[in-house]
Amino acid sequence: MRPNALRRLKAEDKPIVNAWLSIGAAYAAEAIAHQGFDAATIDCQHGMIGFDTAIAMLQAVSSTPAIPLVRPSGLNAAEIMRFLDAGSYGIICPMISTAEDAARLVAACRYPPAGDRSFGPARGMLYGGADYLDHANDEILVLAMIETRQGLANLDAILAVEGLDGIYVGPNDLGLALGHRPLNEPESGPVAEAIELVRARTDEVGLISGIFCSNGEAASMRIAQGFDLVTPGNDAALLRVAMASAVKQARQ
Amino acid sequence: MRPNALRRLKAEDKPIVNAWLSIGAAYAAEAIAHQGFDAATIDCQHGMIGFDTAIAMLQAVSSTPAIPLVRPSGLNAAEIMRFLDAGSYGIICPMISTAEDAARLVAACRYPPAGDRSFGPARGMLYGGADYLDHANDEILVLAMIETRQGLANLDAILAVEGLDGIYVGPNDLGLALGHRPLNEPESGPVAEAIELVRARTDEVGLISGIFCSNGEAASMRIAQGFDLVTPGNDAALLRVAMASAVKQARQ
Amino acid sequence: MRPNALRRLKAEDKPIVNAWLSIGAAYAAEAIAHQGFDAATIDCQHGMIGFDTAIAMLQAVSSTPAIPLVRPSGLNAAEIMRFLDAGSYGIICPMISTAEDAARLVAACRYPPAGDRSFGPARGMLYGGADYLDHANDEILVLAMIETRQGLANLDAILAVEGLDGIYVGPNDLGLALGHRPLNEPESGPVAEAIELVRARTDEVGLISGIFCSNGEAASMRIAQGFDLVTPGNDAALLRVAMASAVKQARQ
Amino acid sequence: MRPNALRRLKAEDKPIVNAWLSIGAAYAAEAIAHQGFDAATIDCQHGMIGFDTAIAMLQAVSSTPAIPLVRPSGLNAAEIMRFLDAGSYGIICPMISTAEDAARLVAACRYPPAGDRSFGPARGMLYGGADYLDHANDEILVLAMIETRQGLANLDAILAVEGLDGIYVGPNDLGLALGHRPLNEPESGPVAEAIELVRARTDEVGLISGIFCSNGEAASMRIAQGFDLVTPGNDAALLRVAMASAVKQARQ
Amino acid sequence: MRPNALRRLKAEDKPIVNAWLSIGAAYAAEAIAHQGFDAATIDCQHGMIGFDTAIAMLQAVSSTPAIPLVRPSGLNAAEIMRFLDAGSYGIICPMISTAEDAARLVAACRYPPAGDRSFGPARGMLYGGADYLDHANDEILVLAMIETRQGLANLDAILAVEGLDGIYVGPNDLGLALGHRPLNEPESGPVAEAIELVRARTDEVGLISGIFCSNGEAASMRIAQGFDLVTPGNDAALLRVAMASAVKQARQ
Amino acid sequence: MRPNALRRLKAEDKPIVNAWLSIGAAYAAEAIAHQGFDAATIDCQHGMIGFDTAIAMLQAVSSTPAIPLVRPSGLNAAEIMRFLDAGSYGIICPMISTAEDAARLVAACRYPPAGDRSFGPARGMLYGGADYLDHANDEILVLAMIETRQGLANLDAILAVEGLDGIYVGPNDLGLALGHRPLNEPESGPVAEAIELVRARTDEVGLISGIFCSNGEAASMRIAQGFDLVTPGNDAALLRVAMASAVKQARQ
Ligand SMILES: [Mg+2]
Ligand SMILES: [Mg+2]
Ligand SMILES: [Mg+2]
Ligand SMILES: [Mg+2]
Ligand SMILES: [Mg+2]
Ligand SMILES: [Mg+2]
Repeated sequence: MRPNALRRLKAEDKPIVNAWLSIGAAYAAEAIAHQGFDAATIDCQHGMIGFDTAIAMLQAVSSTPAIPLVRPSGLNAAEIMRFLDAGSYGIICPMISTAEDAARLVAACRYPPAGDRSFGPARGMLYGGADYLDHANDEILVLAMIETRQGLANLDAILAVEGLDGIYVGPNDLGLALGHRPLNEPESGPVAEAIELVRARTDEVGLISGIFCSNGEAASMRIAQGFDLVTPGNDAALLRVAMASAVKQARQ
Repeated sequence: MRPNALRRLKAEDKPIVNAWLSIGAAYAAEAIAHQGFDAATIDCQHGMIGFDTAIAMLQAVSSTPAIPLVRPSGLNAAEIMRFLDAGSYGIICPMISTAEDAARLVAACRYPPAGDRSFGPARGMLYGGADYLDHANDEILVLAMIETRQGLANLDAILAVEGLDGIYVGPNDLGLALGHRPLNEPESGPVAEAIELVRARTDEVGLISGIFCSNGEAASMRIAQGFDLVTPGNDAALLRVAMASAVKQARQ
Repeated sequence: MRPNALRRLKAEDKPIVNAWLSIGAAYAAEAIAHQGFDAATIDCQHGMIGFDTAIAMLQAVSSTPAIPLVRPSGLNAAEIMRFLDAGSYGIICPMISTAEDAARLVAACRYPPAGDRSFGPARGMLYGGADYLDHANDEILVLAMIETRQGLANLDAILAVEGLDGIYVGPNDLGLALGHRPLNEPESGPVAEAIELVRARTDEVGLISGIFCSNGEAASMRIAQGFDLVTPGNDAALLRVAMASAVKQARQ
Repeated sequence: MRPNALRRLKAEDKPIVNAWLSIGAAYAAEAIAHQGFDAATIDCQHGMIGFDTAIAMLQAVSSTPAIPLVRPSGLNAAEIMRFLDAGSYGIICPMISTAEDAARLVAACRYPPAGDRSFGPARGMLYGGADYLDHANDEILVLAMIETRQGLANLDAILAVEGLDGIYVGPNDLGLALGHRPLNEPESGPVAEAIELVRARTDEVGLISGIFCSNGEAASMRIAQGFDLVTPGNDAALLRVAMASAVKQARQ
Repeated sequence: MRPNALRRLKAEDKPIVNAWLSIGAAYAAEAIAHQGFDAATIDCQHGMIGFDTAIAMLQAVSSTPAIPLVRPSGLNAAEIMRFLDAGSYGIICPMISTAEDAARLVAACRYPPAGDRSFGPARGMLYGGADYLDHANDEILVLAMIETRQGLANLDAILAVEGLDGIYVGPNDLGLALGHRPLNEPESGPVAEAIELVRARTDEVGLISGIFCSNGEAASMRIAQGFDLVTPGNDAALLRVAMASAVKQARQ
Repeated sequence: MRPNALRRLKAEDKPIVNAWLSIGAAYAAEAIAHQGFDAATIDCQHGMIGFDTAIAMLQAVSSTPAIPLVRPSGLNAAEIMRFLDAGSYGIICPMISTAEDAARLVAACRYPPAGDRSFGPARGMLYGGADYLDHANDEILVLAMIETRQGLANLDAILAVEGLDGIYVGPNDLGLALGHRPLNEPESGPVAEAIELVRARTDEVGLISGIFCSNGEAASMRIAQGFDLVTPGNDAALLRVAMASAVKQARQ
């Protein structure tokens, strides 16, 4: 099975830079995944992407060096299994609030006896290889999003769930949950402290700590803070900024 | 019929800033068209966009202030009519090399007796209004791309074709045609001179002079040179640059 | 944020006429939404519409005066949030049977602390505006379908759920639930009485009362009865009737 | 090979009632084709339908009693062959103006030696049967649209082209071509006379005379005039009328 | 309502041969369903098929003699109802582990009072007929997949659930669940015994016993063992084998 | 630029085994292209594949070892350029009958001054690399289909066209053109002789000789005859055969 390069990067303590794909277009996904990213996450929660489009995007990312990941719409085992069958090499699952949530997430991503993933890795075997079954439980990454008040409270229990590979902080939702406006990089205060707490605890147990960032600069700062996996903005936002800036420059 | 705001901008001698859409995604089209552009051109020549996707993009652009235009794959009357029926408010037609080409282009965009456009403006009437037939010949913009050696040679004859609203320079192809590497903004030499020649002649006859540019800065320069309509880069290129820059910044 | 015109209509006590879209085609959606409707609901429960198509339909409706609403496949929070992110300005949720159901529905549609909607309003901000977050909880409409025996029994408790904007009667399912054949406009009997009961109670608490109707005539009758929001038939049924009638007339 | 029922209807001198499909949705196509039509034409000229969607619509129509036909975007042999390969049982080709046009149209629809259709009837064999090759030249219907001034002038020469099965009048374009506003059923004057002329000549040579009509009533009138094949309005127009009427009734 | 031919085959004790569709293409579905199958199941669990594609595949299968079935992604009532509305004549539901699961499955497939299916059979009526409501509860097939350790343990209770029409063995998942590698046709041992147990008990209560098989040969063996419904391999696997064999032969 | 491996195979006198893709599904394309093929041709002439689907298939093939080729619907320069822009590494163009046809084909595939291909290699650069422009004229393969009486007569003139890389025999159309039934491998007679003639002449001038074959066995025979590039059947036909055989075996 094709090894999950993200595990090696973590083992070598190298930062993982992850693209965030919310535009439902395989061409955009392919173009982005060629720009030097280690991973590319297809966002099926807030992205404008249905399942048919997600498959095409997974195929497009598969022709690039980036490892394809998916964020499902929620903790829906059947949906998660579909994305894995379609060749996703990892899941970033939103709104994991309890150890039970995390255990269900892991179970959806692991074949028995480690979990209860159903067998039928259609595209997974095309991307991963004929020996997919033998190694999938070891290669597929499982990341739990910590972005609720409850998830924060249960952080240690979540991190203790066997089979979980790491966490991914959703700063916007975490901020909202803690009573603040969405902000990816609060400079100080309870949200900033919560983010650092999540990172530190995850680091202590040796798992991957990931986080969404506003842009490249913020991602660099998060790496400096010790995060393992950073997402320097999403495609639609960066595209909007680039186009708005082009208009403005043109009119000068 | 909804007036074609681009005509007013030309009449008021205000620059027209045009988005270039090559990513086949209505969400990207809509997001871009909201960034302050006067027009948004769906590129069905070099863009990764089939007809079904183009319709969806035209619908998406229709919900924004930008005027929807289409670049067809070539001087194909049936295809051009389809895009007009689908609600495009103008055509930027590639590779117009002779007055006869230009006349065929105009004919495809105008109802009899001005041309031979076939009647059936399906989405056109939804976007344009119930009186579409009465005004379409006056509102739809027809721009001929000057980007071949022959087109350059026949420039005056092309500009003299009745019903043509303007030209649009394709600097890359023009450069190639003149024996140079594709370059949007050559600083000097025969291609730069040819571009200026096209602009000047078009200006003399009072038609719209448009041009593709590498980015916002270049577009600003073209406006300063006197171009009426500028395209500050295409979506895929700007997105690639933005994403590559985000990766680079993240890794710093 | 673009105001939700349906709230104003309710405030002014003007009837809301809502189109029902079950054909998975953005062109049909756009054509219909231009015919004078106040709202257009994309039916992702019984309609032949997947998520990718629903996005395109939301974009198409966004170019018309009608306010876009969605009926999700069920009380699935992740799915509901996706439709809101995609720009739906309201949710008509099937099969709400208990106050707990209604509370979960409201929670899916409201950002914290009013609910637990996750942040990431991709198309929502394009349609709604940059200040979407500040007003979404006030503008997004939340309507619970009353169409089960249990829902009828729990009507008052459902209506008391904070944040619910109104109800929408599904006469067919309600009829089936009460042991009758599906019929949109029963003239008398328990189903007719139940419908009137729902309307009256909803009216008493000042919420929006909506209902599906067979056609325009029936909708007019429902308005006369006091309903606030009526749906005069669905697109596929009206299209079938129109086409069958055209054939019949042709053969005469 | 499945016989083309339209030929039998013509032989029995029974009117052929044809649906016109311009909405790009296989569900709408299927729903319509079940309403009693003898044929259903997928309009790839003025309809909002790309090739992928057209295939799906052909499949949908194939599950109904209606015979699937296609109107291509123009006299494009490669495109016409694609629609035949995709299972269309006939072609209604726009803008046939000369005998040479008609001969090219016939050639595109017939295998050698009768024409130069290329062999590869992918879906055609699924719908038509394993012996498709043996009978396709006899079963596939070829109708030329008469809708230009030149087409009218060359009518007799067009009708004399071997292999042509009939004509189809496009009253809107014919009206425009003759200097009038588009009108499907002019009561008198040169357009009305031209339409009658086309019908009469076609009848004299024993070919199928077809025509587009505004609605069922008009179609009935055209049948009374002697037309063999009538189209009682297009789907989008009838849908718009039905929905607009529903709104109006609701508001009464 | 169009009768469900599979019920007749069971009544006549004739084997049901079922195609398995995992390629998301209506053309492939149609081509396959014409090859002599009694049924064709669109696999929306492990297949690469979103909802929009599934609708198109259902339409394609509807033009063939095969009865269309769907395997949903899981025991999700809203999703199951959508597939039934879209014209599926039966459901093969994965991972049914308890009598309660089976009861929920049946309820999703039956209108009240037999279940709680919601009314709105959009395409269902096109395929089934105008009297769909009167007979749907009798015609729609409901098959529960037995493929977990728990499902095996609860087999008798599951078989006792009123309204269930039969079971379908998933040998791969069952093998995994019992601690073995996925294998469709284990020759002996606990998985082989479990499969035979399921078949025998299902036979005793007179329900349909179905099973997935590796290929035609294996399916023949399963019929000989007494299975009522067999699936001789899935489309993607058979296609891969056929193509790999063609390459190998070519290179000889 | 990624080298075109097919040129190397020809240089090393190794046979090129080419998959033929007519099913419009990127998943099928990807699965097939992983089975050991050197190339995979997306058939946009007789295949059931629109442009949007073709792009997705090109992306899917790009993730495999097979080189992506396209057969366009005909000798349409604009269409051919679109497929090249979309990343096709070669064109197999139907119905090349004259040296002039061949010259137009070559011109569509080569940038000036070798041809008149327009610049804008969107996906081409993603698949080929940043230096695409420098090498595309050398890497892109241009194959002319010989399958008409005229093409046969003009064979030597066609082979003499500068820039042409080879020919591809279409035995079915060639047979029809010569007055025979379509047959891929006629054992003797004029069609068999014509095929051998084409192969021999192509070989003499050192170009690639390709041919469509019924299956793997036939392809092996063609390699033995000296053909350089063979296509062992198309996907839909092989799939139909495999599925029909599975049914038959199951019923034994
Ligand atoms: Mg979040
Ligand atoms: Mg150009
Ligand atoms: Mg209901
Ligand atoms: Mg016409
Ligand atoms: Mg299973
Ligand atoms: Mg051929």
